[in-house]
Amino acid sequence: MKTPVALLSDFGTGDPYVAQMKGAILRINPDALIVDVTHGIEPFNLAQGGFHLNATRPHFPQGTIFVAVVDPGVGGTRRIVLLEKDGQRILAPDNGLLGLVLAAPGEARAFDMSAHIRARADISHTFHGRDVFAPLAARLALGEAPESLGPQIPVDALQRLDWAAPQPAADRRAVSAVVLHVDRFGNCILNIPDAPWFDTFCAWSGLALSSRRHSASVVCAQIYSNIPLGALGLMRGSQGYLELSMNQASAARLLSATCGTRITLSATDDAS
Amino acid sequence: MKTPVALLSDFGTGDPYVAQMKGAILRINPDALIVDVTHGIEPFNLAQGGFHLNATRPHFPQGTIFVAVVDPGVGGTRRIVLLEKDGQRILAPDNGLLGLVLAAPGEARAFDMSAHIRARADISHTFHGRDVFAPLAARLALGEAPESLGPQIPVDALQRLDWAAPQPAADRRAVSAVVLHVDRFGNCILNIPDAPWFDTFCAWSGLALSSRRHSASVVCAQIYSNIPLGALGLMRGSQGYLELSMNQASAARLLSATCGTRITLSATDDAS
Amino acid sequence: MKTPVALLSDFGTGDPYVAQMKGAILRINPDALIVDVTHGIEPFNLAQGGFHLNATRPHFPQGTIFVAVVDPGVGGTRRIVLLEKDGQRILAPDNGLLGLVLAAPGEARAFDMSAHIRARADISHTFHGRDVFAPLAARLALGEAPESLGPQIPVDALQRLDWAAPQPAADRRAVSAVVLHVDRFGNCILNIPDAPWFDTFCAWSGLALSSRRHSASVVCAQIYSNIPLGALGLMRGSQGYLELSMNQASAARLLSATCGTRITLSATDDAS
Repeated sequence: MKTPVALLSDFGTGDPYVAQMKGAILRINPDALIVDVTHGIEPFNLAQGGFHLNATRPHFPQGTIFVAVVDPGVGGTRRIVLLEKDGQRILAPDNGLLGLVLAAPGEARAFDMSAHIRARADISHTFHGRDVFAPLAARLALGEAPESLGPQIPVDALQRLDWAAPQPAADRRAVSAVVLHVDRFGNCILNIPDAPWFDTFCAWSGLALSSRRHSASVVCAQIYSNIPLGALGLMRGSQGYLELSMNQASAARLLSATCGTRITLSATDDAS
Repeated sequence: MKTPVALLSDFGTGDPYVAQMKGAILRINPDALIVDVTHGIEPFNLAQGGFHLNATRPHFPQGTIFVAVVDPGVGGTRRIVLLEKDGQRILAPDNGLLGLVLAAPGEARAFDMSAHIRARADISHTFHGRDVFAPLAARLALGEAPESLGPQIPVDALQRLDWAAPQPAADRRAVSAVVLHVDRFGNCILNIPDAPWFDTFCAWSGLALSSRRHSASVVCAQIYSNIPLGALGLMRGSQGYLELSMNQASAARLLSATCGTRITLSATDDAS
Repeated sequence: MKTPVALLSDFGTGDPYVAQMKGAILRINPDALIVDVTHGIEPFNLAQGGFHLNATRPHFPQGTIFVAVVDPGVGGTRRIVLLEKDGQRILAPDNGLLGLVLAAPGEARAFDMSAHIRARADISHTFHGRDVFAPLAARLALGEAPESLGPQIPVDALQRLDWAAPQPAADRRAVSAVVLHVDRFGNCILNIPDAPWFDTFCAWSGLALSSRRHSASVVCAQIYSNIPLGALGLMRGSQGYLELSMNQASAARLLSATCGTRITLSATDDAS
C-alpha cells in the first residue's frame, strides 16, 4: 500500500509545470502514487484553492500527503509550511490557502519547511512547486517524519483570510457569505458549512438572496429536481458547504456570480 | 498486475469531483490503478459520453472496470447498473449512456446496483459518482463478484436512445445520422459504424451531405492528405465510426456542426 | 521500481485519444507507470511541443520513456523515430518536434521505428499514437532494447526546425528570438537558453524589445516582485529558457504575443 501524494495548484494543465512536479517526485520516490486534485484553480485564487483542498481531504485515505500550490508570493518572504491534521499532511505556502482547513474542527500541528528554499543552489526563484514542495512531498511519502524536515511552529501563527467563515448579522436573521467556487454546472458553492446552517435556513418561513446586482427568493431543496424550473435553490450539496443551484440551469448565470461574489441570505417575513 | 479502473464523466477537471471519486476508490482499494478516460463530456450529453465509452473500451485490457457518470437524473429514480460485456465491466446510470455499448455485437449480462444508493446514511443526493459508483468500482477491483453486489436483470430492460443507430432510407440510397462528437481538430464523428458503411459509401458513384444549414459533396478518403484542400472528406477514422474531416482544416467549422447535429449522406446520380 | 512512460501530445483531454493510448500501453504492459506531460499543445504546433519536451525531460528520472505525438503528417511518409539521450528515450515523429532536444548539448543515438507502421493490418491511418507509439513505449518499458525494435540511423539525419536556436546579430548587440510558449500566467517563454544569455543581457547598459506590433524597454529581474508594476521583465524563469514576464500581470497581453511571435532584444545606448 502506497501513500497517495495529491497535487492541487493553479498551474493549469497546458503548461509543463504539473508534469515537472511529478517528475521531481518520481526522481526521489519512484513508487509514489501521485493523484491530481485539480490544477484548475484560477491563478492566485486562495479562496477557491482553499475550498478545493478542504472539501477534498475527507475523501482521501489516512496518510495522504497533499501538496497545495497557489502561491502569488513565490520567491518572496512567505513561509512554506506543513500542516498535520486528521491523519493527513498538507504542504502549502503560508499565505491563507490553509484558511478553511484551519477553520475546520480538529487538532493540528504545523512545521516550518522554509529552510528547504535555500537547500540547493539550483532552486528556481519562480517555481517552488517543483524545486521545494515536490521533493518534500516525496521524502514524506518515503517515511521521513515532519520533525526531521523542519521545526514545529504554533498553528495560531499561520495566515488566515477573512473569507474563511460566514458573517451572521447581530439578530441572526441574515448571513453574509462569499462564493468560494462556481462549478461546471453553474452551482455556486458558499463559505457556509452545511451544519448547522442548512437546518437553520430551512426553518425560516422564507429565504431571500441579495447581492450587489441581484435579489431573488430562494427555495431549500434536497435534490435538483425538487427546485421549481427557473427558481433558485439552496442545497446541502456534496462538498460540506451550502450551494446555490438551479434545476437544469446555471445559478451562476442567473446571479452573474463568480468566485468571490458576496451575497446575503435573509429571513423574509411571513406576511411578505 | 492490477485491474484498471477507468473513469469517464461530464465533471470537467476544474471541480473537486473527479479527485473525490479517486480518493473514495483509494480509501477502499489503496492499490487501485485509476485511469481517466475523459471528464470533458458536455454536461448531461449522453450521446457524447456513450460514444467515448464504446470507442475506448476495445483499447483497454480485459478485466477493466469502467465507471461512466453522465447523470442528469442523480438523486431521482433512475437505476445504477453494472454491465458485463467483452470481458470488461461498466458501472453507469441506466439512462441511455450505455446505448452504443448495447448496440454493439456481443453477449452481455446486467446487474442492478441501485440498492447501494441507500446503503449508508451519508450518501449525497447530488454526487453518486463519489458515494455510490466509486465504492462499487473499488470493490469490484478487489475481486468481489457482480452477483454479490446486486441482482441480475435482463439486458433488454436497459434504457436505449434513438441515436444509437443510423437510419437508412427505404431505398438504402441515403442514411440519416447524428454527430456523436466533435474532436479537437474539428473532425465530426458520426453514429455510423465503419463496417459495413464505409465500403457502401465508397461504392456509390457520388456522395452528398445535407444538414439543416449546409449541403456539400463528400470525398471518401483513407488519410487526411488525400482530401483536396477545402473539400469535405468521409473517413474511416480510428474510433470505429465514420468521420467527416478536412485536410488541415475543421469540418465542424465548415458545417457549423456540434454534438447532436443531424446530417444525411446521400448517393448522387452519375449524371449530376 | 517502474519505468515511467511520459505522454505529450496535442490531443487535448476532451477526446478519447489520450485514454486509448493509455489503454494500448496497459494491454501490453499492465504495470506501466503512465504520467501525462501535457496534452494541451496547440494542434500541430511543433515548436511548443518541442519546448515542453525539452524543458520537462531533465526533471524526470533516468530511464523515462517519453512519447511525444504532435504529428500533422500522420499516415504520410514521415518516419517514427526513437532518440536516446541523457539516459532517457523519446519516441516521436521525425518532423522537427525533436529540434530543441537535438540542439541541447549531449550525445544521442537514433533508431528508425517506421517499420512498425506496417506491422499489423488493423493499424489506423490517422492515429499512430495509439496503434504504433503506445505499443512501442510499452515494449520499451518491458525492457526490450531499441536495437531489437528498429535499425540505428544517424542523428544528423533527423529533422530540425529554424526556431531551435536564437539568431544573434553580427555585432552580437541584438538577438532575434521566437516565443515558444505562453503560459497560463502570461509569461512568454523564448527560444533563448538561460546560459549564457541571461548574463549577457544583464551586462548590457539597457535592453529593449521590439516586435512587429510593439516596442518596450525591458528590465532584468530574478523574481516577479522585483519587476516594477506595469514594466516588462526578462527573467531566468524555471524552464531553462529566458522568459518575458510582468509583476502580477500578463506579458503576453501587453505584447499581444502568442506561440510563434517573433521578437528582437537589443542593447540600448548608455545615452538613450
